[in-house]
Amino acid sequence: MRNIKLTVAYDGTDYHGWQIQPDLPTIQGLLVDVLSRITQEQVELNGAGRTDAGVHAWGQVANFHTASGLSPIDFARALNALLPPAIRVRSAAEVSPDFHARWSAKAKTYRYSIDRSQVPSPFRFRYALHHPYTLDFDAMSAAAKCFEGEHDFTTFAASTGSDEDDRERNVVRTINRSELIAGPAECEALEAAEAQLLSAQSYPGHGEWIYVVRGQSFLRNMVRRIVGTLLEVGRGRIQPTEIPALFELRDRSRSGPTAPAHGLCLVSVDYPGSEVFT
Amino acid sequence: MRNIKLTVAYDGTDYHGWQIQPDLPTIQGLLVDVLSRITQEQVELNGAGRTDAGVHAWGQVANFHTASGLSPIDFARALNALLPPAIRVRSAAEVSPDFHARWSAKAKTYRYSIDRSQVPSPFRFRYALHHPYTLDFDAMSAAAKCFEGEHDFTTFAASTGSDEDDRERNVVRTINRSELIAGPAECEALEAAEAQLLSAQSYPGHGEWIYVVRGQSFLRNMVRRIVGTLLEVGRGRIQPTEIPALFELRDRSRSGPTAPAHGLCLVSVDYPGSEVFT
Repeated sequence: MRNIKLTVAYDGTDYHGWQIQPDLPTIQGLLVDVLSRITQEQVELNGAGRTDAGVHAWGQVANFHTASGLSPIDFARALNALLPPAIRVRSAAEVSPDFHARWSAKAKTYRYSIDRSQVPSPFRFRYALHHPYTLDFDAMSAAAKCFEGEHDFTTFAASTGSDEDDRERNVVRTINRSELIAGPAECEALEAAEAQLLSAQSYPGHGEWIYVVRGQSFLRNMVRRIVGTLLEVGRGRIQPTEIPALFELRDRSRSGPTAPAHGLCLVSVDYPGSEVFT
Repeated sequence: MRNIKLTVAYDGTDYHGWQIQPDLPTIQGLLVDVLSRITQEQVELNGAGRTDAGVHAWGQVANFHTASGLSPIDFARALNALLPPAIRVRSAAEVSPDFHARWSAKAKTYRYSIDRSQVPSPFRFRYALHHPYTLDFDAMSAAAKCFEGEHDFTTFAASTGSDEDDRERNVVRTINRSELIAGPAECEALEAAEAQLLSAQSYPGHGEWIYVVRGQSFLRNMVRRIVGTLLEVGRGRIQPTEIPALFELRDRSRSGPTAPAHGLCLVSVDYPGSEVFT
């Protein structure tokens, strides 16, 4: 059996999230359906992150095992020919047998877009939270930095439902980067995958603020609850200096509300380089 | 009666074009419906350009007469509160009684986006024609320049249907600018309205070519037939040097095919400055 890794971009607007569900259109469901038609096998597809309904992806990663002799590039072409235009396989590669999109992942990067323009662009309403009201950028930026490092994220976990990663009840997570970005100057400092996404979606700094967060794994709804908390900081209802105390409280009712799904995008998933053949 | 001018942006994907049609969702139809609810009057709305089904706009202009005492900014706010997010009123102003969005227009600027990347972005498929195959940029660029000036555009008119402007059967049009653009360097030379649009939609030069055309008025389907012809030039089926002869032929069957609607966007409409009060 060969192991094929796919990098997938999608507009999540019209889908009920990544995870396969009976009788509902999901990204995983459509991919599995098309892969099964191509291979005539019962395909099991592992995704790196279970994005919620309405969440987008530029660099979701998934893998599946197959006896098919199709080359990775032919898999990508066949998938793109049969999938709707809102789901695109950006690349495909054959990887070592033990590569697993979720368990092998070293880090995931998400971004959350906030459209700050008075009148939101009709070309951006699917991809950015429109928030034209007063927000304190500096306070939000300082608060964002407080999420970096190793923390117990209970306060910022979903009130119900399981861990995004289905891992044990460990609620300690390590965030490598947590940053609010505005303006084209800061944009130049972005890493390659993000820059690619930004160019594919929009040019930031023209009315949009981008929150970028990178970590090994995330609790369910964690990024959207961090963003909801940052918005409360922007409104002056929470001070940046209160963030450490919020971690201490371990109380889900004390974070900001969960920010809407459509502003969120899974930008990229990193793996140890050696695990990829091609 | 007051005369109100609106500048409107829309994602045309889900609409049957600008012009009002019974039982079909159109941009003009939705605007008239909401304006009639706001004013309790039978509102007649004049649009500058009758964009086809699937065509987008960043700077469509429309005007209507009303006895309502609402301020322009309140009209904009009420409209945006009641319209779907795919249609946004970017600004509103009170103008002189004789201002007419179509007849007063001095020039219209359209752009047509061609996504040249191998795998099209799922965030751009609604707004750009995906064309990953070999195209001769220099030949297309030279051919684009041939459309500038005053010409008989019979060869590039729709085979059926009336003039976009409903003007008399005069098929002579004057194009002030006709240019193919690729890359961020050229982008900096764009005019303000276009730059604003580009930033709202995407950053050009990262896989997209943009055709920009500006003229006083256009025949029905004219821009899309010019683009279809430029694509034939890019494929080597028509030489740039043949364009003048195509004008001479005055034969609709000799142009390239009509390029798909979704790549087209009405960027801006220009008026003599004195006609605008605010």
